[in-house]
Amino acid sequence: MKDRNYYLAKAEENMPKIIYSELKPEASQEVFKKGDSILLDLGNHYVGHFSFRLDAAEYFICAPVKMKIRFAEDSREVDDDFSSYDGDLPSSWLQEETVILDHHMTVDMPRRYACRYIKITVEATEVKVKLSDFKFLASTSADMDSLKAADIKDEELRKIDEIAINTLKNCMQTLFEDGPKRDRRLWIGDLRLEALANYCTFDNREIVKRCLHLIAAGECNELGFLPSYIFETPEFHTGWAHLSDYALLYVVTLCDYYKNTKDIDTVNDLLDLCKSQLKSFRNILDENLIVVKQKGWFVFIDWCKGLKSLTALQGVYLYTLEKFTELLESIGDSEKEAYEKHLDDVRKASRKHLFDEEKGVFVNATDEYQKSVHSQVWMILGGVIEGKEAEKALKTMLKDAEAKQPFTPYMRHYIVEAMLKIGLKDEAFSYIKEIWGGMIKLGADTFYEVYVPGDPDFSPYRDRMINSLCHAWSCTPTYFIRNEL
Amino acid sequence: MKDRNYYLAKAEENMPKIIYSELKPEASQEVFKKGDSILLDLGNHYVGHFSFRLDAAEYFICAPVKMKIRFAEDSREVDDDFSSYDGDLPSSWLQEETVILDHHMTVDMPRRYACRYIKITVEATEVKVKLSDFKFLASTSADMDSLKAADIKDEELRKIDEIAINTLKNCMQTLFEDGPKRDRRLWIGDLRLEALANYCTFDNREIVKRCLHLIAAGECNELGFLPSYIFETPEFHTGWAHLSDYALLYVVTLCDYYKNTKDIDTVNDLLDLCKSQLKSFRNILDENLIVVKQKGWFVFIDWCKGLKSLTALQGVYLYTLEKFTELLESIGDSEKEAYEKHLDDVRKASRKHLFDEEKGVFVNATDEYQKSVHSQVWMILGGVIEGKEAEKALKTMLKDAEAKQPFTPYMRHYIVEAMLKIGLKDEAFSYIKEIWGGMIKLGADTFYEVYVPGDPDFSPYRDRMINSLCHAWSCTPTYFIRNEL
Repeated sequence: MKDRNYYLAKAEENMPKIIYSELKPEASQEVFKKGDSILLDLGNHYVGHFSFRLDAAEYFICAPVKMKIRFAEDSREVDDDFSSYDGDLPSSWLQEETVILDHHMTVDMPRRYACRYIKITVEATEVKVKLSDFKFLASTSADMDSLKAADIKDEELRKIDEIAINTLKNCMQTLFEDGPKRDRRLWIGDLRLEALANYCTFDNREIVKRCLHLIAAGECNELGFLPSYIFETPEFHTGWAHLSDYALLYVVTLCDYYKNTKDIDTVNDLLDLCKSQLKSFRNILDENLIVVKQKGWFVFIDWCKGLKSLTALQGVYLYTLEKFTELLESIGDSEKEAYEKHLDDVRKASRKHLFDEEKGVFVNATDEYQKSVHSQVWMILGGVIEGKEAEKALKTMLKDAEAKQPFTPYMRHYIVEAMLKIGLKDEAFSYIKEIWGGMIKLGADTFYEVYVPGDPDFSPYRDRMINSLCHAWSCTPTYFIRNEL
Repeated sequence: MKDRNYYLAKAEENMPKIIYSELKPEASQEVFKKGDSILLDLGNHYVGHFSFRLDAAEYFICAPVKMKIRFAEDSREVDDDFSSYDGDLPSSWLQEETVILDHHMTVDMPRRYACRYIKITVEATEVKVKLSDFKFLASTSADMDSLKAADIKDEELRKIDEIAINTLKNCMQTLFEDGPKRDRRLWIGDLRLEALANYCTFDNREIVKRCLHLIAAGECNELGFLPSYIFETPEFHTGWAHLSDYALLYVVTLCDYYKNTKDIDTVNDLLDLCKSQLKSFRNILDENLIVVKQKGWFVFIDWCKGLKSLTALQGVYLYTLEKFTELLESIGDSEKEAYEKHLDDVRKASRKHLFDEEKGVFVNATDEYQKSVHSQVWMILGGVIEGKEAEKALKTMLKDAEAKQPFTPYMRHYIVEAMLKIGLKDEAFSYIKEIWGGMIKLGADTFYEVYVPGDPDFSPYRDRMINSLCHAWSCTPTYFIRNEL
């Protein structure tokens, strides 16, 4: 394996070019007295920096001008009462600044925001002031000029494709961010899905290569798993979650990358690291080849309270092994057969130990008996069941009110993938229309971090205001629409 | 008269050198979680810029850190509830910032503050953070190394002298500010007193010369009066008050300047302008040579609700005429005798029309009958009454509960000056101990904008929180102690 400096140098070499566009939102008002406010509408969701001009509208600015400036991803957020925020994440993610300006000036706000709306309230001033020259310098590494054309007949899917691409675009900065409002980190789970959506749209290979190397530069945990995320600002730093499913999906990301690019150099750079991830996972299987729960937050699968994740995690392992075996085959790696044999053994063990033959669904073995959509989806994707048996297991769970249901668009991606794998194409695209189309009905300009039909206030952080409304892991409908329709 | 560009060039030539000193307040705490706060004590009142270092105390700063940073001139202000502020001036003068920082960094706060205490509250963070390297870069154009020595035996007066000098020092920046917390402007009334205190302490002639030229560059109003203040930041701008007493005191400031410096070039630059101020004032006298009220806020004298100011204003005119006549004499100006004659005429008219012979006090003639300390003080300083008659008029009013009493240390300066003029030296220094010593008893590190014994909450702006606790016009005890003791 290469060392961290090598990976970081490779990441730096593949820094994508940032493309800026200057938006000039129109203002309904120019002169402001104490208490006045204005709402600027960028017309769409963007990520970037805001600037404006402050002048006296009468006399001279003789006392500081205090303003609140709120950046809102949607219209609902414009009027949210931030002071009532009581979620689990710090309120500092709420995009509102209090600025005090001593005199007339051009104000270049230093922080970056994700928003469609900008609300400015003049909280204190002595003289009437003039606010003008509003500019939002939007940034992205997604080049709209290189967007692949797609002839999508279905109007609803065409719109979903458009919003998905907008979501991806706003998450594509100097790396694949999970969400430009909140976290702004490179998470493996998001990376895998963004990369997939990217190949069939902007096809920016540089950013994928950069992200693969950034994660590679991170420190593994005591189990040997890669960090699930890294920070790049103000300098590289390893994140402190090492989710085992994300470590596996890192391997999948490299497999996808090779399939789409045939870039053997990058595979050679990262292959040993991927093998080490699979070896680390193998180490946490029991004598029956079933994964054993580890301490802490070691598996994600989905934001879903009380979800027992081990069966799904077993499926992620199988899914990864299959993709990796394909990669080894295509590059002619000598270990291919050993992996293939292991994949077969684990598949058989999974069926034997995790499938409830009587009920026809997968349950959790080494943690606790629990019915969930998640287990079926990942066992289908892991190739343990297929055909009618798989269809029955999935459909039964999707209809079972007692079974754990998916919460994130991230998990829903894998539901769609599972449906398509077992030939349920109509169901898959109906599901896309129901879920992602549902967000559009709520007015989404970008797809949300969390969306639960009928429960628009759901938040894994206990307060909707902190949810990210432009979230990378929700961008994959474009992948399905462009590849599977 | 010279033109504005000439005056501005002269002002620029005489820009005083700013002296910086770096203070490193000690912190009682280094690691902060959400809700924690720290109080830094600079040990004295200073004016300048604050910086500190933000780091993660664990892991890495993975969510923005939101902080409130309050700069308090005294300990009471540290815990004031700013949200309850309801005064007449904009709340933006209250020195508290809300900052949101995305990652570890050295934070150089861009605005300038006047404070002794700095309270930092961590309002939101995900990880524990470390705050360190607190630095306050204090600035002043007062060079403590050039401070004239003074052998003051009386311990109380020695302390008053020290606090007065500290007040002056913190108001001395690139010009004589009225108060470094609020306004931060060059006001003529403050300038005159700061210049007086400066000659016997730092003796920085450059800054006086600069200030005289800055005011000269301002636009006069339709009556011909100079602006009472100007702004220098972000560029020169004329203020929009043209108080007639301040226009007169501008003339006095030049007279004091010549007396202390013998700088004839500056006098030659500004003499015609001063003559024009006196001519403008002469134009608002009636046929009896008594000043007539003009529209708007055309006279200050003191912050004292309902004060009828015309008799005092008449006194300011006489006081100015006398100083100006002395100046003309010392420079050999041919108009000296005409001014002397006019001074004599106005003095006689003032006695005739404004003095209540029966009661032995001055009242207001052309506005309204009103008893006030202010009228006596300025008529004494204007030389209309003297000796026992003056003593009786002043003492009567100071004891009369129905008479308007002074509110500002600015007005109190002229009370002391009047006392000393009529030989009441003991009373003058007792008065200094009562008023300025009274502020020290409240814990003052610098003298306040407003101080009313027994009413520490008095504010001309209806809310104490907005008062300035380091205010130039309160710095003159050092002048009296060093010149008149």
